[in-house]
Amino acid sequence: MRGRKRVGTAPALEQVAGNGLLHRRALLSGGIAVAGALGSGTALTGAAAEPLTEPEWSLWPGEVTPILQKPSRFEAKVVRTLSNPKGDARTQHARAPLHMLNGTITPNSLHFTILHSGIPDIDPDKHVLVIHGMVKQPLEFTVDALMRYPMVTRKYFVECGGNSAPMFSPEPIQAPLQALHGLVSCAEWTGVPVSTLLDEAGVDPNARWMLAEGADSLAVSRSVPLKKAYDDALVALYQNGERIMPGNGYPMRLLLPGYEGNMNTKFLRRLKVVDQPAMTYYESRNYSPLLPDGKAYKFYFVNEVKSFITQPSFGYSLKEPGFYEISGIAYSGTGRIDKVLVSADGGKSWGEAAVEGPASPQAFTRFTMPWRWDGQPAILTSRAWDDSGAMQPLRADFIKLRGEAKKVPNVLGFPNQHYNSLTAWGIQSTGEIKHVYV
Amino acid sequence: MRGRKRVGTAPALEQVAGNGLLHRRALLSGGIAVAGALGSGTALTGAAAEPLTEPEWSLWPGEVTPILQKPSRFEAKVVRTLSNPKGDARTQHARAPLHMLNGTITPNSLHFTILHSGIPDIDPDKHVLVIHGMVKQPLEFTVDALMRYPMVTRKYFVECGGNSAPMFSPEPIQAPLQALHGLVSCAEWTGVPVSTLLDEAGVDPNARWMLAEGADSLAVSRSVPLKKAYDDALVALYQNGERIMPGNGYPMRLLLPGYEGNMNTKFLRRLKVVDQPAMTYYESRNYSPLLPDGKAYKFYFVNEVKSFITQPSFGYSLKEPGFYEISGIAYSGTGRIDKVLVSADGGKSWGEAAVEGPASPQAFTRFTMPWRWDGQPAILTSRAWDDSGAMQPLRADFIKLRGEAKKVPNVLGFPNQHYNSLTAWGIQSTGEIKHVYV
Repeated sequence: MRGRKRVGTAPALEQVAGNGLLHRRALLSGGIAVAGALGSGTALTGAAAEPLTEPEWSLWPGEVTPILQKPSRFEAKVVRTLSNPKGDARTQHARAPLHMLNGTITPNSLHFTILHSGIPDIDPDKHVLVIHGMVKQPLEFTVDALMRYPMVTRKYFVECGGNSAPMFSPEPIQAPLQALHGLVSCAEWTGVPVSTLLDEAGVDPNARWMLAEGADSLAVSRSVPLKKAYDDALVALYQNGERIMPGNGYPMRLLLPGYEGNMNTKFLRRLKVVDQPAMTYYESRNYSPLLPDGKAYKFYFVNEVKSFITQPSFGYSLKEPGFYEISGIAYSGTGRIDKVLVSADGGKSWGEAAVEGPASPQAFTRFTMPWRWDGQPAILTSRAWDDSGAMQPLRADFIKLRGEAKKVPNVLGFPNQHYNSLTAWGIQSTGEIKHVYV
Repeated sequence: MRGRKRVGTAPALEQVAGNGLLHRRALLSGGIAVAGALGSGTALTGAAAEPLTEPEWSLWPGEVTPILQKPSRFEAKVVRTLSNPKGDARTQHARAPLHMLNGTITPNSLHFTILHSGIPDIDPDKHVLVIHGMVKQPLEFTVDALMRYPMVTRKYFVECGGNSAPMFSPEPIQAPLQALHGLVSCAEWTGVPVSTLLDEAGVDPNARWMLAEGADSLAVSRSVPLKKAYDDALVALYQNGERIMPGNGYPMRLLLPGYEGNMNTKFLRRLKVVDQPAMTYYESRNYSPLLPDGKAYKFYFVNEVKSFITQPSFGYSLKEPGFYEISGIAYSGTGRIDKVLVSADGGKSWGEAAVEGPASPQAFTRFTMPWRWDGQPAILTSRAWDDSGAMQPLRADFIKLRGEAKKVPNVLGFPNQHYNSLTAWGIQSTGEIKHVYV
């Protein structure tokens, strides 16, 4: 049988934690005789040892090369899920299918988006960016002008502050990773440092904030500390090498590494330098939820360290006991991923995952962990640390501090912001996978 | 006027080489009072200081969010150019528009491809990879089986051995970068190390090569040294996070970091372990050109260190004297980019470019250099070094060793392989840009 596991031929690979977690380098160090250790390759014997048949696609010339490539028709299920597919007069969410992706880059076609008044169809030759307010000399930049400025290229995640809102539910919601955590993506962004443009305008020493406003019809705007603008903010013009996608802010967006998505103003049309926050709609409403202690959770900005396992996860089914690779994403708004631990027994014991390096700060980092499933119930979860010393909080601690949604399924009521505690997958003895809390 | 340069207000920034090359950190170190140094921002005064008008796209809700994003209609020119758009019975080339891209990632839609018999429409549930020949146990892997193996994620360029063939012409061919160097791209690839699969099959100690064969109807095949297979070869399943594009080898391809594209077998269906090269069609014909000394240039494999300036380049026109950023790509099959020098006077004097870091081995590295154009003729070129000590050869040395095409326009005759010498752009006083040799 194709893909059949040859149970029983596996040598003893080093187990580092309960329920079959193996050493992260067990199969990558080379030179180990692992025949049968994985056993996913099917042995061929006799006549089957020359098994090459000629499928239809090997018999005739294939299709004509297009000017723009797109995925195979066999990958038609790999799409974003939409909260408002008809574009009714409310917010439109498009969630990235992270459980079907790998690596650290989200392709532009699949990068998550949230639009509050649709996607404006902006002519780049008519769009301008203005810097004004508490500056010596207000300035206006065309796209052509900005293209002449020094640019930098960096890989950064962008995450909606409301990503993972379903995780505030008192009971784990049975839904794929895409529904739980699909409002985060990672791309390589290229753009002009905001500091260069502010320096050219000449910022008043008494200024402390800047108001960033988009050219969408809702004119979404947010207040950004000037310190962040000088630290690492970009006016981004390119996304994974090509000009920014319309839903991600074409022709330009503000990029604030590690800060919640809503602040990374899309369709950026002005930066007004000011001495206090403007208390715009989004910062005084959506992004000011009440905490259990009665205070408003406001101006918190940073998406803190977080991780989740993407494969296997809800929606997959393990067909048989044997070897599997556990694979997931870790990222942090406060630094670069330093360490990811994985557990297969719901947190009783942990092993250290392999982390793709060198990890970039404020970017997706792929972690992997070899695992041999024995066919018994198991609970997979991950926990990440960054190089600032920050770690993912355990769920009990997180909920105590940040609250819980009052009832299901109204999980999008407050509190719903900045979940960064653990995500866990319960493997059933049937191989089915449930969403569970640990 | 929008985007107009305010000539004459520029302070003296440090010049590091002839014809206006500026220090690479001049404008990125922050805190420098550069008001007017760039001068691409247009000063706003009086009523113009509150210049925000409401274009049409700011007045009404925008378009509905799609399940798959695509670029703005204003970027319709950013496409691959095709050598055989009707798919006649010969090779089809699709060249990447590198002069319109930035950063280090080539989006999947724009990754270059070469297909010798079209793009096969492969059903991943029916495709298998076989490992056989000089092994203890021949094995067969379904796609589902491979998905359970340990994977690694790496950023690598892939370049056709025949990329830059027009550069062998005795006279510089007047064509955009896309036509000259468009048969190279860079992506983040995720896949299973070939070594893991070979170890499982158990390789005979007398074996030295493996024959890699694709499932396309031409069954393109190449001989690969086993040493390379063990060093860093992958069976790649993902390209920039999503499953590999059909034209790039869906559902899986061989990925040999730094080796010429043709060896990175697409639609991979078997690896036959053998003791000598198979002398297949491509390795004994296309990739065995004659050298000036009469010997065949064969089994050379590696794409050596190379760089070229992407902006500005042929097809662009500088509208006015003033500040511009010079931006380009460097990469090397023998290591990571260590240093890139840029010249604005055709190689008489050189300044060191800023290199985006940390540079990944066998991957695109973006370099940038600030430049103030004085309106006089200038010749821009770049030269790269990698951390193995290899450098781009000067053109005279390269041609002496490797030959030159006999006549124009038959530049695709031999020699046409592995050009890695310099590329230069001649800036005319009108601002027009020509392709020149230095």
